[in-house]
Amino acid sequence: MADETSIPIPGQIRVVTSLTNPTIKEIRALSLPKFRKESGLFVTEGMKLVADAVEEDWPIRILVYGAKVANHPVVQRVAQRAHARGGDVLEVSEAVLAKITRRENPQMVVGVFEQRLTDPQTIRPGPAGVWVALEGIKDPGNLGTIIRTSDAVGAEGVILVGDTVDPFGVEAVRATMGSIFHMPLARLSVADFFEWRKRWPGIVVGTHLSGKHDYRAVDYDKPVLLLMGNEQSGIDDRFAAACDTLVKIPQVGRADSLNLAIATGVMLFEIRRDRLKLA
Amino acid sequence: MADETSIPIPGQIRVVTSLTNPTIKEIRALSLPKFRKESGLFVTEGMKLVADAVEEDWPIRILVYGAKVANHPVVQRVAQRAHARGGDVLEVSEAVLAKITRRENPQMVVGVFEQRLTDPQTIRPGPAGVWVALEGIKDPGNLGTIIRTSDAVGAEGVILVGDTVDPFGVEAVRATMGSIFHMPLARLSVADFFEWRKRWPGIVVGTHLSGKHDYRAVDYDKPVLLLMGNEQSGIDDRFAAACDTLVKIPQVGRADSLNLAIATGVMLFEIRRDRLKLA
Repeated sequence: MADETSIPIPGQIRVVTSLTNPTIKEIRALSLPKFRKESGLFVTEGMKLVADAVEEDWPIRILVYGAKVANHPVVQRVAQRAHARGGDVLEVSEAVLAKITRRENPQMVVGVFEQRLTDPQTIRPGPAGVWVALEGIKDPGNLGTIIRTSDAVGAEGVILVGDTVDPFGVEAVRATMGSIFHMPLARLSVADFFEWRKRWPGIVVGTHLSGKHDYRAVDYDKPVLLLMGNEQSGIDDRFAAACDTLVKIPQVGRADSLNLAIATGVMLFEIRRDRLKLA
Repeated sequence: MADETSIPIPGQIRVVTSLTNPTIKEIRALSLPKFRKESGLFVTEGMKLVADAVEEDWPIRILVYGAKVANHPVVQRVAQRAHARGGDVLEVSEAVLAKITRRENPQMVVGVFEQRLTDPQTIRPGPAGVWVALEGIKDPGNLGTIIRTSDAVGAEGVILVGDTVDPFGVEAVRATMGSIFHMPLARLSVADFFEWRKRWPGIVVGTHLSGKHDYRAVDYDKPVLLLMGNEQSGIDDRFAAACDTLVKIPQVGRADSLNLAIATGVMLFEIRRDRLKLA
């Protein structure tokens, strides 16, 4: 049991030590895509990430923290905020945290948040705005890293096209390192993407092995939609045809030897380079 | 048992179906750093990667393939070559492959190769040569991706400094996508690195949050040693002091929000950009 001083809102925190507690089971179930879809919720781990999200008023449903950090001022502030927003606040044992996170040395703070997606029809890129569209990405680590990189270069958002992996899965969220809370994300079916793309006010740029343009030789002086295909096959002919410009990142040795997240990062920094020209 | 046509070298292939076969256990043990260190061996999965390595005369000790690909011409050629080089050739069941690779849908070909490291004292970079030095990298996926990217930009090799994760672990090897067989790798203790660095004939460039130079503003016109620090803390003061130039990759929003492999990729493509200037 927590001692008196560890309870910022006496009587409003539930102390849970049972591994079979229904709320704990519910959180664990969020590792499955099915339950994330049904509930519209996702799990984030780590004191700093959870605290930042709560500070920025991201809707939190459940806050879980380890008894041993109950006195930490950040945890107390986050608990108060979460409670004020109607969230469930649970103080738990390390064993429960290990069970939730499926890790031997678990993070001491876990938050369950509402998923948020941007309606693609509301996207209005700025004059120098960059959006990234990802088609058929399979690897959650790649997706999370791309969201993180998009955030770092100041892109306006990421669009997940077709059968792209869930950005709200644990591994993807981990790889975003908090950018899941900063980057607007939208989803489009393949058919809807082709419709939506017609109204894109700038250029659509894809990377392709048969790309005619060196990626450094293109003028990225309009709103750019950067379209990247999946890890194995890149963008297919239909998507290539939907691009205004197909570019190639020249590589030495074996063809197509860049990891998808690296290729996306190189492209994003090149687009940004073009805009923020050095004096 | 394999039928006659599936045996390229009759009588010289061992057919193994037992999960407790000593050779199978030995291969499985290579997932542990201790056994990799003792044996000097490592495991690679995938028909194409194993075949390419064997074609390039990388020393193979054990070749394992699934009975159902025994008739594949690539497998037959690789089996002959492996045998000719004194390697042990095993035809196994899918259950054995799943056991070796710890995957439900295993690759059908697995090779056990000798580890190879380059002696750092023999490194002589070309006039435009690039080497990457990594200090204290913890994540095998990051390391593998960096080796793969280094290969793609035509870097001459990668130096693992101090307590950097083993490049011959399964996860790192997978992330290299075959570049483990192409990129020279060397290891140096921290103390030896500082000694070795004194004889570097070009410039040593490190990325650092307090870097004074925009990464795009530096002349990379000599042999470049790109020094990258670990995922959490970057390069420390001692390593920063060992650099000729500390550069910064400007980022929007929260500081230091790039994944290590992405930051390394952006730097490597920038260095290359500087050399292969567009007309």
